[in-house]
Amino acid sequence: MAFEISPDFISALQEEIDAERATVVLELLHDLPEQDISAVLLELEYEQAAYTLRLFEKEFGAQVLGELEPDFRKKLLKSFSSTEIASYIEFIVSDDAVDIINEQTVKTGEEVITLIENEEKAHYIRDLLHYDDDCAGGLMAKELIKANINWTIKQTIEEIRKQTRTVEKIYSVYVVDDLDRLLGRVSLKRIILADDNALVADIYEDEVISVESYLHEVDVADLMRKYDLDAVPVVNIQGQLLGRITIDDVVDVITEQADMERQAMAGISDDVEEDDTIWLLSRSRLPWLIIGMAGGIAGSRFLGMFEHFIALVPAMAFFIPLITATGGNVGIQSSSLVVQSLARGSGDDSFSFARFFKSFLVSLINGLVLAILVFVMNYFFGEDLRIVMVVSFSLLSVVVVSSFLGTFTPLILDRFGVNPAIASGPFITTANDLIGLAIYFSLAYVLY
Amino acid sequence: MAFEISPDFISALQEEIDAERATVVLELLHDLPEQDISAVLLELEYEQAAYTLRLFEKEFGAQVLGELEPDFRKKLLKSFSSTEIASYIEFIVSDDAVDIINEQTVKTGEEVITLIENEEKAHYIRDLLHYDDDCAGGLMAKELIKANINWTIKQTIEEIRKQTRTVEKIYSVYVVDDLDRLLGRVSLKRIILADDNALVADIYEDEVISVESYLHEVDVADLMRKYDLDAVPVVNIQGQLLGRITIDDVVDVITEQADMERQAMAGISDDVEEDDTIWLLSRSRLPWLIIGMAGGIAGSRFLGMFEHFIALVPAMAFFIPLITATGGNVGIQSSSLVVQSLARGSGDDSFSFARFFKSFLVSLINGLVLAILVFVMNYFFGEDLRIVMVVSFSLLSVVVVSSFLGTFTPLILDRFGVNPAIASGPFITTANDLIGLAIYFSLAYVLY
Repeated sequence: MAFEISPDFISALQEEIDAERATVVLELLHDLPEQDISAVLLELEYEQAAYTLRLFEKEFGAQVLGELEPDFRKKLLKSFSSTEIASYIEFIVSDDAVDIINEQTVKTGEEVITLIENEEKAHYIRDLLHYDDDCAGGLMAKELIKANINWTIKQTIEEIRKQTRTVEKIYSVYVVDDLDRLLGRVSLKRIILADDNALVADIYEDEVISVESYLHEVDVADLMRKYDLDAVPVVNIQGQLLGRITIDDVVDVITEQADMERQAMAGISDDVEEDDTIWLLSRSRLPWLIIGMAGGIAGSRFLGMFEHFIALVPAMAFFIPLITATGGNVGIQSSSLVVQSLARGSGDDSFSFARFFKSFLVSLINGLVLAILVFVMNYFFGEDLRIVMVVSFSLLSVVVVSSFLGTFTPLILDRFGVNPAIASGPFITTANDLIGLAIYFSLAYVLY
Repeated sequence: MAFEISPDFISALQEEIDAERATVVLELLHDLPEQDISAVLLELEYEQAAYTLRLFEKEFGAQVLGELEPDFRKKLLKSFSSTEIASYIEFIVSDDAVDIINEQTVKTGEEVITLIENEEKAHYIRDLLHYDDDCAGGLMAKELIKANINWTIKQTIEEIRKQTRTVEKIYSVYVVDDLDRLLGRVSLKRIILADDNALVADIYEDEVISVESYLHEVDVADLMRKYDLDAVPVVNIQGQLLGRITIDDVVDVITEQADMERQAMAGISDDVEEDDTIWLLSRSRLPWLIIGMAGGIAGSRFLGMFEHFIALVPAMAFFIPLITATGGNVGIQSSSLVVQSLARGSGDDSFSFARFFKSFLVSLINGLVLAILVFVMNYFFGEDLRIVMVVSFSLLSVVVVSSFLGTFTPLILDRFGVNPAIASGPFITTANDLIGLAIYFSLAYVLY
């Protein structure tokens, strides 16, 4: 069903582009939807992509631009004049238009806005530029269909007819009063089934979920997911209708959240992808690696204090990897469950006694099972009984302590507004390594 | 905007329920949407929830049931007769109805289906029972609006009127031929703007993205996300229209995917949540902890071969945590980037030379930086020069090897149809610990 890009297709296309055979190029791309075209452009050189984009009619080209990956689009548009960019913007819905303008230099962005012929569009864009990227205002588009509560269905259909180019997917018609305050909504289904002379006031639903413009995008996503909304209207503090957010924007927010969380768990500091540059990839990994290394050096200084002890009982060294690895694994398991609760929004973010007691019981069960297994195995391998006891008892303590830290840390981070998923990453592993070593050697020191 | 459940509200509600003051209970829950009611029920005892559910009209109660968390719903419905369940099912859209029936015992499920009065609904449900949970057929609902290509708009509107109760959100009307083969779609917007006597054939779009019933749910989600679809029709191999999947189902798939990936990365084996039982939580963590432990024991056996060496040069032991932690961190970083590429669907899943060469260069840069830093720090701390050289050189090798494994493992797992996120979890950490130790001690043995 979906179109797959093959290397053969791309190289054939590139050949035609380089030879500037416009009709053949258009023929090759014929009938592909804008999402596929944008994926194809991504595989070309910038000049080739620019050549191809200019072959399309402005309206379709605008749709392609709207789908393009932002970094690529930014570089691609460098070879386009402000007038050209403005002519595309005419056909792009306001929320995507603002994204494109924000990718330009301030000067180019300003130029583009003044060059937009459609005054309403330019006004929409100026309006949206005020909102933060990560709030409802930054997600919404200004284009929507609204009907005054006193209108007839006929008037409402007339309004739909007028807006049919600017609003691709309608979902609902929003109902407002004379001061533009949101009163409710009418579904398209009801409009179809209603009599032309019926009043909006007679058929509209007066209960509509809306969000205020400053609501965080993650909360918007949670709300839309919870109530299965396809679109949600955005209002200001006076309840006036400002715009609407559609489900496709929210799907992007959910996907981005998952990416950010994965990267935080893996200890990667920037928003990188496999196809970023080698330099960027290296740089994004180094901070956590260096923190891990600092932890490792600290661990080596700590162990250095036990130099004579290790020389005397080298078997103590054998179990260092066991202790540190178990602490790390338990810490990540515990923290990721808390992160999941927090990410669900349903999330309980309290430091309740019940939460810690439960986490304590779970870790106690796991710790006991591991300690017994290790005891049996080591005894079987004929290790010295004292060592076996120290290892087993340390393992139990490490599991309990790591589990506690793994539960606690993401909650603390979340309180301070830091992404709690960081706690599932190298941070908790490093801390647990050190704590594990401390427990292990202190215990041994006491028992010997 | 959204309703927040307070403990005070719940205890007040419970008091009224226990006193069986039906009108007060309904008053307290008045005007709440089904999603909020289902969240409230989740906080009650099962008998209290059952009492409350029975107070609602069947149609609204059915909506509440549709929203309930599956585990809770399963236990709740144990105190309901098959006749009662069937009477709710009458009002539930077929895909959710199948979920509810699948939660019952086979016997109850069969009973419920035979008790459903609406024959079309019963037929729909029997039909859907054939599909696997995780494919397009398992996600779709049978309810949809379709129009024959030869109909007029007026006939189509008549069809919408007939189906208005069963199809809550329409999105598009699907256009079929006399053999029920999917030909295209008409948006509601077009229907509103068209003349009543126009033919469907004149205004429909003949390009429609559809999926076959056996497509995996993750691919369905990728497709709908890529093409910004609100709904996608499902067809059989003859191209006949079987049902449709709506975006809210796909949002659930995306969220579930993120949860599964997080759990795989954290080494948790079942789909658990923080509020599951202590026993389930313990059991879901143990498998990976035991694998980690087995790795730790293997490590101890390996180190045991160097007993005399460690006794002679105890400083060798000091850097074990540094080596193992760095290997683990690098492995997780590398694998999580590959997992991300794969999860995006855009994902290149090839074992290309370029991919490995790039990953090699990134790891070389990181490895060199770490090795130099460690060299300088240890030299500064006055460690023996030979040890410092062994540690630095091992660190470089460990970074390169772990990075290679971290890139390779998820690709292999993905090829074999295993969730590649597992590779970012304890699996890679355990393997890297062992490899790190092997490199470190082999190098030392050679250099001493």
